[in-house]
Amino acid sequence: MSVQALPGLPKTIRAAILNRPMEVETIELPMPEIGPDEVLVKVMAVGVCGSDVHYYEHGRIGPYVVEAPLILGHECAGIVAAAGEKATRFRPGDRVAIEPGVVCGRCDACKSGRYNLCPSVKFLATPPVHGAFAQYIAMREDFLFPIPDSLSFEEAAMNEPFSVGIHAAKRAGLQPGTTLAVMGMGPVGLMAVVAAKAFGVAEIIVADLEPIRLEAALRLGAAHAINIRERDPLAEIKRLTGGAGVDAAFETAGNPKALQTALLSLKRGGKLSIVGLPPQDGIELNVPFIADNEVDIYGVFRYANTYPQGIAFLSSGIADVASLITDRYPLEKAGEALERARTNKSGSLKVMVYPNGIE
Amino acid sequence: MSVQALPGLPKTIRAAILNRPMEVETIELPMPEIGPDEVLVKVMAVGVCGSDVHYYEHGRIGPYVVEAPLILGHECAGIVAAAGEKATRFRPGDRVAIEPGVVCGRCDACKSGRYNLCPSVKFLATPPVHGAFAQYIAMREDFLFPIPDSLSFEEAAMNEPFSVGIHAAKRAGLQPGTTLAVMGMGPVGLMAVVAAKAFGVAEIIVADLEPIRLEAALRLGAAHAINIRERDPLAEIKRLTGGAGVDAAFETAGNPKALQTALLSLKRGGKLSIVGLPPQDGIELNVPFIADNEVDIYGVFRYANTYPQGIAFLSSGIADVASLITDRYPLEKAGEALERARTNKSGSLKVMVYPNGIE
Amino acid sequence: MSVQALPGLPKTIRAAILNRPMEVETIELPMPEIGPDEVLVKVMAVGVCGSDVHYYEHGRIGPYVVEAPLILGHECAGIVAAAGEKATRFRPGDRVAIEPGVVCGRCDACKSGRYNLCPSVKFLATPPVHGAFAQYIAMREDFLFPIPDSLSFEEAAMNEPFSVGIHAAKRAGLQPGTTLAVMGMGPVGLMAVVAAKAFGVAEIIVADLEPIRLEAALRLGAAHAINIRERDPLAEIKRLTGGAGVDAAFETAGNPKALQTALLSLKRGGKLSIVGLPPQDGIELNVPFIADNEVDIYGVFRYANTYPQGIAFLSSGIADVASLITDRYPLEKAGEALERARTNKSGSLKVMVYPNGIE
Amino acid sequence: MSVQALPGLPKTIRAAILNRPMEVETIELPMPEIGPDEVLVKVMAVGVCGSDVHYYEHGRIGPYVVEAPLILGHECAGIVAAAGEKATRFRPGDRVAIEPGVVCGRCDACKSGRYNLCPSVKFLATPPVHGAFAQYIAMREDFLFPIPDSLSFEEAAMNEPFSVGIHAAKRAGLQPGTTLAVMGMGPVGLMAVVAAKAFGVAEIIVADLEPIRLEAALRLGAAHAINIRERDPLAEIKRLTGGAGVDAAFETAGNPKALQTALLSLKRGGKLSIVGLPPQDGIELNVPFIADNEVDIYGVFRYANTYPQGIAFLSSGIADVASLITDRYPLEKAGEALERARTNKSGSLKVMVYPNGIE
Repeated sequence: MSVQALPGLPKTIRAAILNRPMEVETIELPMPEIGPDEVLVKVMAVGVCGSDVHYYEHGRIGPYVVEAPLILGHECAGIVAAAGEKATRFRPGDRVAIEPGVVCGRCDACKSGRYNLCPSVKFLATPPVHGAFAQYIAMREDFLFPIPDSLSFEEAAMNEPFSVGIHAAKRAGLQPGTTLAVMGMGPVGLMAVVAAKAFGVAEIIVADLEPIRLEAALRLGAAHAINIRERDPLAEIKRLTGGAGVDAAFETAGNPKALQTALLSLKRGGKLSIVGLPPQDGIELNVPFIADNEVDIYGVFRYANTYPQGIAFLSSGIADVASLITDRYPLEKAGEALERARTNKSGSLKVMVYPNGIE
Repeated sequence: MSVQALPGLPKTIRAAILNRPMEVETIELPMPEIGPDEVLVKVMAVGVCGSDVHYYEHGRIGPYVVEAPLILGHECAGIVAAAGEKATRFRPGDRVAIEPGVVCGRCDACKSGRYNLCPSVKFLATPPVHGAFAQYIAMREDFLFPIPDSLSFEEAAMNEPFSVGIHAAKRAGLQPGTTLAVMGMGPVGLMAVVAAKAFGVAEIIVADLEPIRLEAALRLGAAHAINIRERDPLAEIKRLTGGAGVDAAFETAGNPKALQTALLSLKRGGKLSIVGLPPQDGIELNVPFIADNEVDIYGVFRYANTYPQGIAFLSSGIADVASLITDRYPLEKAGEALERARTNKSGSLKVMVYPNGIE
Repeated sequence: MSVQALPGLPKTIRAAILNRPMEVETIELPMPEIGPDEVLVKVMAVGVCGSDVHYYEHGRIGPYVVEAPLILGHECAGIVAAAGEKATRFRPGDRVAIEPGVVCGRCDACKSGRYNLCPSVKFLATPPVHGAFAQYIAMREDFLFPIPDSLSFEEAAMNEPFSVGIHAAKRAGLQPGTTLAVMGMGPVGLMAVVAAKAFGVAEIIVADLEPIRLEAALRLGAAHAINIRERDPLAEIKRLTGGAGVDAAFETAGNPKALQTALLSLKRGGKLSIVGLPPQDGIELNVPFIADNEVDIYGVFRYANTYPQGIAFLSSGIADVASLITDRYPLEKAGEALERARTNKSGSLKVMVYPNGIE
Repeated sequence: MSVQALPGLPKTIRAAILNRPMEVETIELPMPEIGPDEVLVKVMAVGVCGSDVHYYEHGRIGPYVVEAPLILGHECAGIVAAAGEKATRFRPGDRVAIEPGVVCGRCDACKSGRYNLCPSVKFLATPPVHGAFAQYIAMREDFLFPIPDSLSFEEAAMNEPFSVGIHAAKRAGLQPGTTLAVMGMGPVGLMAVVAAKAFGVAEIIVADLEPIRLEAALRLGAAHAINIRERDPLAEIKRLTGGAGVDAAFETAGNPKALQTALLSLKRGGKLSIVGLPPQDGIELNVPFIADNEVDIYGVFRYANTYPQGIAFLSSGIADVASLITDRYPLEKAGEALERARTNKSGSLKVMVYPNGIE
């Protein structure tokens, strides 16, 4: 099956599979086979993402429909267990973060450096591609990235939502001195705060309605946290910036009102990154404001070329992202993990699943 | 009054002034005085812009209200008649195009190269600053640009709407091979077609409802013209691009439906420049489309650093922009010119006023 | 061998091979086999490049050494003769231009959109990879690009040197209004003039010592041509720009003196693209000039993402690149073609070889 | 003289003036008059720059010749003492950093956001413009920037060399994950290390020959320090990057050998910022390396739009730049300060002068 492998690999593996909305089961599967350019990874930690919860609850996200039982999970890290004959970058035992979208490398999007827009991408846990709630998965080697011993697997799994924040930061050209507002302090919003800090941004204003999230944001480096239940976020952002507004804003909540606020919170020439997916298609935006103020708006879809950057920053230990992990479950309780993430927004930040046992 | 001047300058000048909506009068005024860094320009041609018509009809555009009688007109060119003692770039007799917004050069916007966002700009014919429907105006010398003898004054006046198109083209990064849709073929849309051609774009698809405008667009270099009364523009753009959509789109009409169409006509990773100002604030945009496809949206407000570029291209004679001038009036008939532009959208393209007589 | 093929393909093909410096022989080879994602192309036209001539004369270019007999030629176009089972973009009979460097799509350079820097590239006629002086070659389908019937194969072959010019133009950010100096009017320099025109540049100053080349440059759109045997090019560029210097300069000749001139011909903030490879490593550059004037210098190595752009422009018929083809040879005379290109710099511009006969 | 002023301003001030090379004298001058848009600043701290030392020693830097006695010093901060009638941004008592180059705001360079290339700049301590070794100076208000109480005047003065580092960082596009080599650890090199950190760069390799400078670099955040007396810096950079080379390099020493090393230390696609001015014009650079590897080289001349960024970062307290100040002198000993900076390269980092007394 491969040139190099860890000794004593099992013939079968366990995985948590979504049979239908709200029903997750642990099943036994054959050990994945790997192609010549692939690597077998022993999955050590998998974060539960909002998209996992959405598939779990509704069985679909927009045009992506779960038509057959699906293994969820795509924020993951693990240990190289075996390498195909042409997979030369890694050796069994190497610790790796997994970038979950494998792209073709041959289309216009890939060739121009925007591989996140590849129409042929195979993305973990996006139907019909199975995800990482499994003891082992096969992955093309160029989507694995080495992590240092100082970085835990669960921290390395956080590199996936961090990558979204990094991509939003690059799209908006964040740099030292930029003032930034981030709407929504779910895990993506929180990791966007970390990304902004990584790009040298000090003046970060965040808004959400859950105190636990706002506290986490302040701990990670936000300068100001606005509880939108208590204060009008637009007025507050204006007040905090001496009336000027911010240079850049991210909307990460998928909330129409938050998006409208993010737009109007900008200075002339400001930049808005749209990260969150709202539930409906049509949202009223203030178009004269966009034109008169020469606003730039950037759609943000996943990320490209972010993994080494993210790992380097997380490894520096500057941001304590492990503190965002509030709930830990073994593979057998992946359903509970999804349910926890679905229902406990006031108490949970990031829920993590450990397919090979909680360390 | 100045170091150098044309001989025999008059003491008084005539100007056309808007006293109240729909009422324009020709009056006599003292010859403008010029400051040490200013130049006196004998105004030879002034284009009627949609904003002039709007002030003429409604007395306001959004927050800009005509509270005292106002001289309209800002698309203009002329002859240097006198130069202040510190104005060394020009000599009397020089032929010049006039960039109509004088900025401070000292604010953050100016210092970072986006002087079109200067909060202290004094822009011709934007209240309370008088415009160019006058025989002579004073202008700071760094907003005058020499034009060659091969370029007529009326063509040079067209450099103003051309500048909007150039700015939109630069914002969207147009280059050879880009496919482009332009919604709205008023003068700004038509000049955006010329701008796209100047940047090497060949595949330009335009849409409007007036046949005269569509014909002009084809004459100026558009590859395809869609009459939206006859065909669905989104379906037609998709058809013309083999289903792919376009790399870039401009909305120049200020029409909500056209804006929605422009957005949805884009490829993944496409770029939308918003040039037209819609009448209402809130417009429904498909936000999931923006995010999923990583669309860039750029507000376009006037222009910066475009005048030499525009003059160089217009002087090359590649585009016959003089053919867009359908109506010509002397200063005394400036009111008729405005009325013509207001009412004859099926027959007029650009209406031009000649404060010192039609050549 | 493949799912789809032209009827009656031969079992063997002819190719011109370089056995040792200055010795080219026509040999018979088996028809190339194609992989599942490859396409078999009947080669219709191949331009002779300076690098072909250099391998022919010296057997090496810097670190690239011809250690075994090598088929030269990489500027090529042809007809799809057969398509592998997974090659779905083309059908037999399709007319195509061939981008000659096949890259991995998986390294950092490829993933970030700079695939021309891929360390695993397989580039036609760069040892040990055979080139296109052959009746048929196999190529991965994503490096073939459809050409319209209006574009001849020999014009399509010119898209390769044109791509170098396009890449240099993109690196330097050429746009309408840019003033440009191009040093060296060999085929790459001439195609750089075409590229500059494609990007909207009108004020192009060129320099060389061969009158035939300077005449061709003027025919293709250069505004001014300097014969460096007659005039000092730096003084002349300064004179032509009113003392200001140019916004951008390209060095395409690989000549140290030309490079020094190109640098010093720049305005403050100017941009220099280095396209030509000089014979020696160390060249004296005026470093205080670079620093004081904030010059940007861009190395240019081949190109990336240029083929569709180039084909679109060549197909527009704006530039008569066919007029650059001064010499035409059948495959059997490929050695003569190389010799011609080597020795007739005063009389030949582009020498072309037709592996399946001169049309 | 002005609308607002601190009470009890003196009629005369003291300043340290360079009469001829190596001869500095303290003289008495009338209090500077301020124009309507100017501010009078009580100068609290002035750093001694390498250019000050060069004027002191040689009386010239390249084309800039000290032809009349000149007050040196341009890295400075102070307290607003009076404001002209049109200077509305500041009030007496405000603490400010001073950006020392006043530009025209009206030339092409200024209008396009690259005001550091303004040909009309008046730069403190560049002949014939007097500098800041004086108790009070007049400055146009838009070149003053407020500083928080948490930032000392001497730290604020360091914002000037910091700005050079920030500008080099922006030119090279530094961001998290970039690997960087900085050649030369004089004050500009050291502040470039701080700038790189501010932009999120962790992997900073520095080289110099003075241990005190290398130690300071490590203290400020460099990851590796190479003493070029002990090791070959190119080999060492290659070793530290696993053979790959760095993404970006800065040359800050003005040393030809360091520049050559910086170039060759780059990865393919790497970026080189040239900050230091070498003593001679012609320096041999490996041009085939630049072309083959598509290196970008950026000249760096002073800076633009960096002051607020720099102040924001210095105010964050992340970098202890005060620790770079090794020597402190009152105004009367400005000559000694210059002599100290000239002769004590093994022991001094930044020498500071306090025109109104050491705090």
